[in-house]
Amino acid sequence: MPARPWMTTGLLLGLLAAGPAGHALAAESPVTLRMQASWPTTLTVYENFLYFAERVDKLSGGRLMIETLPVNSVVGSFDVLEAVGDGRLDGGHTWAGYWQSRHKAGVLFTGGPGGPFGMDHLDHLGWLFDGGGIELYRRYYSEVLGIPVVPLPILPAGPQAFGWFERPVRSLDDLKNMRCRETGIAAQIFSEMGMSVMALPGGDIASAAERGIIECGEWSGGADDLRLGFQDIWKYYYTPGVHESVSVGELLVNEAVWDGLAPDLREIVQSASMETFLRWWVRAQKLNAEALDRMVEEDGVIVVRTPDEFLLEILRTWDELAEREAAADPFFKEVLESKRAYARVVVPAKRFGTAPYSLAADHYWPRER
Amino acid sequence: MPARPWMTTGLLLGLLAAGPAGHALAAESPVTLRMQASWPTTLTVYENFLYFAERVDKLSGGRLMIETLPVNSVVGSFDVLEAVGDGRLDGGHTWAGYWQSRHKAGVLFTGGPGGPFGMDHLDHLGWLFDGGGIELYRRYYSEVLGIPVVPLPILPAGPQAFGWFERPVRSLDDLKNMRCRETGIAAQIFSEMGMSVMALPGGDIASAAERGIIECGEWSGGADDLRLGFQDIWKYYYTPGVHESVSVGELLVNEAVWDGLAPDLREIVQSASMETFLRWWVRAQKLNAEALDRMVEEDGVIVVRTPDEFLLEILRTWDELAEREAAADPFFKEVLESKRAYARVVVPAKRFGTAPYSLAADHYWPRER
Repeated sequence: MPARPWMTTGLLLGLLAAGPAGHALAAESPVTLRMQASWPTTLTVYENFLYFAERVDKLSGGRLMIETLPVNSVVGSFDVLEAVGDGRLDGGHTWAGYWQSRHKAGVLFTGGPGGPFGMDHLDHLGWLFDGGGIELYRRYYSEVLGIPVVPLPILPAGPQAFGWFERPVRSLDDLKNMRCRETGIAAQIFSEMGMSVMALPGGDIASAAERGIIECGEWSGGADDLRLGFQDIWKYYYTPGVHESVSVGELLVNEAVWDGLAPDLREIVQSASMETFLRWWVRAQKLNAEALDRMVEEDGVIVVRTPDEFLLEILRTWDELAEREAAADPFFKEVLESKRAYARVVVPAKRFGTAPYSLAADHYWPRER
Repeated sequence: MPARPWMTTGLLLGLLAAGPAGHALAAESPVTLRMQASWPTTLTVYENFLYFAERVDKLSGGRLMIETLPVNSVVGSFDVLEAVGDGRLDGGHTWAGYWQSRHKAGVLFTGGPGGPFGMDHLDHLGWLFDGGGIELYRRYYSEVLGIPVVPLPILPAGPQAFGWFERPVRSLDDLKNMRCRETGIAAQIFSEMGMSVMALPGGDIASAAERGIIECGEWSGGADDLRLGFQDIWKYYYTPGVHESVSVGELLVNEAVWDGLAPDLREIVQSASMETFLRWWVRAQKLNAEALDRMVEEDGVIVVRTPDEFLLEILRTWDELAEREAAADPFFKEVLESKRAYARVVVPAKRFGTAPYSLAADHYWPRER
């Protein structure tokens, strides 16, 4: 086996124990994988990472351990992909929308504006697993970006709020020239709608706002926005948004590390990421609901339902942008068309066969807001 | 260790290998658990069972095997609980709504009419995991029914269609005296709405309809209805329903069998059931969408959107029934109030912070039906 200087000690032991064919021996030593998140420990999205690590430990009976590191332990939020690719990290807990500057298709593997095509989180997973999406997702890294990582969906962080504002925004004109924190494709959409956008890691948003550099912004909505302190800076919270109606974070594993894992440990990493996806998604419903109550009752935030006009304008701006990208780049087009084909089957049928959430909700809980 | 005549050979070997404290030894022998479903192999719900078994095999590296049996291998659809409890089976793949005749709270662990309280499947899992539901679910079996089984949610089979009919139903009066297949609490609701209801296992519905015993019925909607052949019997398909808006099937494991599993194998069964829940739920979106297209385009079925008036009447009938049950039974009341408390926090906030599915769906897919 050639020496690989980027290989962590834990992995090396694991590979040696697993033998040349990757099969586990009875005397297999525990393997530790060092993974870093794009977020600090204080956010609920980090709890997703911790839950995953705990499940891997439990499922493997301690044979595989995940060492979880917060952002900036090795690299910054937006450099996790590169560090996993070159082996400084065995894995990362991050978000494909951050790789927009390398290739625009990144956002499509997180979900995207309006789904896209009206899809929700479940439909996005459907596209990944039953619509050819996961193969495209792997090709995005291995062929298009040429970075040897294996991606797994793990973190459903949406539908996200429209954002936080200093003052009320009553029309699309009010958004013009506003200095806002946005990232990924949302930054491009809002820029085309006239905002002056700035990409900042989550942990830097509040300080930028306090220094007057930005006058509006968004992280994800709900509980994590409160943990970032937005309620102490901005008075108006607009929800929902559709710029990240579906927004799924990823677990990245260095490809050589992945290939070196014993087969059952690879299965364990996959199941643990799926279980984490579901359990954390479930938990986010409650955390975000409690956060909405708290921001109104304790923090005096004015919560406003985003006007449909805003949401539809975001979709129209995205549609134009997506068509331009598809015309300019064959891979972006291939992914977009793959998603459109899946959505064409699923979205209209689901709309028809499902009662709106509001039907029973309105029956039991008369609207207060 | 006392002899337990109901114990299967595979389990006994596993327990002996695991030793008295339940810890796995290095030389542990593979354990096989015999489990039976309440459905035949032909239905998509059985594929959920198979997927679970496959994941357990993969995650455990073959140390734990699930022998999957279809309905009537050992017992009928409605006797799976009893057989798992007395050890004729190690486990079952079934639905808590079938135990209504023993105690009415069964349906509340599947979800229930209108959620209940407006909850969707994600909210139901939230109640189970973050709202105290799973403890009540275990108590339902161990204390209320006194049957030693451990339940795990595994099969999200909803939102279900309203049903299939020989002729159009244009008003609530048209439902009166209709002879329909319904099970669980839905049977009671529709009975109070004037239907003449009959509980039949899924596999018996089509033959009862062919013999004229019933003139309407429901199974779940979508793909499995077509597999049962409803499109060859009835011309009208009404969707959605709210009698089983949330409907989650369960994996039951005999309690002694569960306690005898090595700790990491218990973790594996839990993760595999969660992963199965999510992956199968995702897949059902596509299968049911394709089924809707097929019934219209190939089978000439007339699909009709259920009038809101029907749906709201189902909710009102259920509300009265639930209040009566709560007044009559302290455990039913405890569970109902627990669900109401969870829903009070989550449902109104989620309605406020989420764009309706139709917003982006209508933007991309103009309505044809």
